[in-house]
Amino acid sequence: MAKYTEMSDEELALEIRDLRAEYRKYQGMNLNLNMSRGKPCKEQLDLSMGMMDTLNSEADMTCEDGTDCRNYGVLDGIHEAKVLIGDMMENNPDDIIIYGNSSLNVMYDTVSRAMTHGVMGSTPWCRLDKVKFLCPVPGYDRHFGITEYFGIENIPVPMSPTGPDMDMVEKMVAEDDAIKGIWCVPKYSNPQGYSYSDETVRRFARLKPAAKDFRIFWDNAYGIHHLYDMDQDYLIEILAECKRAGNPDLVYKFASTSKITFPGSGIAALASSPNNLVDIRNQLKHQTIGHDKVNQLRHVRFFGDIHGMVEHMKKHAAIIRPKFEAVEQIFEENLGGRGIGEWTKPKGGYFISFDSMDGCAKKIVAAAKKAGVTLTPAGATWPYGKDPHDSNIRIAPTYPTLEELKTAATLFTVCVRLVSAEKIAADRASTPVQVQQ
Amino acid sequence: MAKYTEMSDEELALEIRDLRAEYRKYQGMNLNLNMSRGKPCKEQLDLSMGMMDTLNSEADMTCEDGTDCRNYGVLDGIHEAKVLIGDMMENNPDDIIIYGNSSLNVMYDTVSRAMTHGVMGSTPWCRLDKVKFLCPVPGYDRHFGITEYFGIENIPVPMSPTGPDMDMVEKMVAEDDAIKGIWCVPKYSNPQGYSYSDETVRRFARLKPAAKDFRIFWDNAYGIHHLYDMDQDYLIEILAECKRAGNPDLVYKFASTSKITFPGSGIAALASSPNNLVDIRNQLKHQTIGHDKVNQLRHVRFFGDIHGMVEHMKKHAAIIRPKFEAVEQIFEENLGGRGIGEWTKPKGGYFISFDSMDGCAKKIVAAAKKAGVTLTPAGATWPYGKDPHDSNIRIAPTYPTLEELKTAATLFTVCVRLVSAEKIAADRASTPVQVQQ
Repeated sequence: MAKYTEMSDEELALEIRDLRAEYRKYQGMNLNLNMSRGKPCKEQLDLSMGMMDTLNSEADMTCEDGTDCRNYGVLDGIHEAKVLIGDMMENNPDDIIIYGNSSLNVMYDTVSRAMTHGVMGSTPWCRLDKVKFLCPVPGYDRHFGITEYFGIENIPVPMSPTGPDMDMVEKMVAEDDAIKGIWCVPKYSNPQGYSYSDETVRRFARLKPAAKDFRIFWDNAYGIHHLYDMDQDYLIEILAECKRAGNPDLVYKFASTSKITFPGSGIAALASSPNNLVDIRNQLKHQTIGHDKVNQLRHVRFFGDIHGMVEHMKKHAAIIRPKFEAVEQIFEENLGGRGIGEWTKPKGGYFISFDSMDGCAKKIVAAAKKAGVTLTPAGATWPYGKDPHDSNIRIAPTYPTLEELKTAATLFTVCVRLVSAEKIAADRASTPVQVQQ
Repeated sequence: MAKYTEMSDEELALEIRDLRAEYRKYQGMNLNLNMSRGKPCKEQLDLSMGMMDTLNSEADMTCEDGTDCRNYGVLDGIHEAKVLIGDMMENNPDDIIIYGNSSLNVMYDTVSRAMTHGVMGSTPWCRLDKVKFLCPVPGYDRHFGITEYFGIENIPVPMSPTGPDMDMVEKMVAEDDAIKGIWCVPKYSNPQGYSYSDETVRRFARLKPAAKDFRIFWDNAYGIHHLYDMDQDYLIEILAECKRAGNPDLVYKFASTSKITFPGSGIAALASSPNNLVDIRNQLKHQTIGHDKVNQLRHVRFFGDIHGMVEHMKKHAAIIRPKFEAVEQIFEENLGGRGIGEWTKPKGGYFISFDSMDGCAKKIVAAAKKAGVTLTPAGATWPYGKDPHDSNIRIAPTYPTLEELKTAATLFTVCVRLVSAEKIAADRASTPVQVQQ
């Protein structure tokens, strides 16, 4: 297919005319589709309905150590939940704290605690003149939102298919003790679906931060969220690697079952070193008497063990894999070779990252919106919502039905083509023509 | 019965000899009983097992507005849960935020947010040299623990059967702008079971604090936790009273279903003014995508409405009322008229407050412990665990069976009598005898 930039003015004008007609056709369809957030679809939610039967009124509500899960107590989670989530996170059950329904809330709490109480005895961050966080970009808007809310300066660091730019990360954390953390989605990253390479993980574990209270916020949100059974990304387990590297306290690792059972009604967890866990439990004992043990027990009884959970994830994959493949096929067919955009082809997670020509993302998202398809706002993948290239758009293919998704993805490509063609035409019109003498 | 202080030395010596023998008899029983925390007993937990059937695998998981409760979203709670909890809290559903499983966690968050972000635009408390909270005493140890954890100075204010000493409260908050809050359990207070009088509530609503960011932390933990159907305490609803008094933003009100359904697996809520709720939602949107809506739906389906909840609470009362009555009867029989202790006779809530002679509480708790009965540590009802009189002991009668409770309560009275008699004897021995000339 022809590159748009190589088209003649006449060809481009014809293309724009055709695309406008096609776009108007979509506008006439009164669409109301949403590719904005990483939400499971109804069929995925139905996979976990069996969990609702695991604890009925006849159920034994005691856990293995005899604790009645209905009553108060057990601050950091019932043991069998730690075992299950430990297998899920690839961590020792003893290194895990089970929380409530939201790993985002655990991350928020972790930053909040550091603000008011520091990290393992360090000066509370709220007492420092300046606190900075590194934010691999494009990245997860809700991560950046937490640190922004606390007045922490979010500093973008470029992502690549192997992870963040580690030369930059190593240099910055070594030189600036105001840098207290970095947000990471190390596997099937949000939004690219990239997984950190072995070298990246090893370099993370060997960081030499100037700040003793620097921590890696390792949000392994998609650890077992593969699209394929064999063709999976593998991530070196960070806590073990940090331990081997002599930096055992460097990482807070987060995960949840939000996209395994029910978003908002799953269980979240944090894994970290014994030193960090002592620090955290000292807060936790003032914060709560304990999290929802009945829901922990419900999850354990439903899955049995990690094999049960892995088999369950295959059912998720069977539902959402065709959606990822449909988007990729539509993008390839409609955008391939035109030189107006690139997109990732993840093997897991919940997103596809799309990069338009510079200066087109906001217009593409606005055009899609006007035709009834909601996308994540352009810029959302950057700190403060400001993408300096105005090029990155996060595509979330899981929530719509396959048919809806195909419509939405096709419209999206129409918007990309139209906005890109119009931009190229406008750029040409505003550029003085080099007249051949 | 004779007052111990009026016994002759010989009578007292005989009493001590008999009590030591009785105490040793209990020690020989290898008891392992617990009257330390306000935990429902197994029979109470069984009352809510029907809730486990309300959402099975065939259930409709959508709420009234069509939202699928299994998926992400609905930051501050589903509407029907706000209606139910609104009726429970006597507040407008629109003035309520539904949280996760723990009202303690909501209170912790509320203090934590004020530390880092202030209250409705005020200076964050962490930037102030000094922050103080008023703590009605005796009171709830976990309340005091939260403010202590944040380095806030806890200042005791005496409680009476009508509530905190309002002369003192009014004077202190008007004069000292470092006082930012007061912890209140206004109905069936922890540990006394007192309910604030109409005058107390009205004076609270009319407070004129020097600090604009002063808030009343109104933990209405036992709002519908009556022991009797008709003989109930009534509390003026504080938000409405504050509104009438022209102080609409003065109060954060907390409640939960922890002692209605399952502790740790209930739902918690906060009610406050629209201004405060805006402030809180601005935090909440960074903290979480939403709380556990499935559990909210489960509660709504189980109770139906407030009448269902009230009927349910009658079943709780039927189980625990005999326990309160048994303790009161045993205390009256064994301690009445001896002048060595006083106790409250609440009409609801989870506790009885016992005041020994000054300087005896720690010894009584230690003696009970040595005979196998665990009580809340003496001093726990005071900030920093320091009861200046060493006299207050919180009795929690709900968790043991009635038979166990009778044994524990009787042993407790033996410990009170023994420690008191020994103290009186020791005091006499160390006091120079006034020899009659």
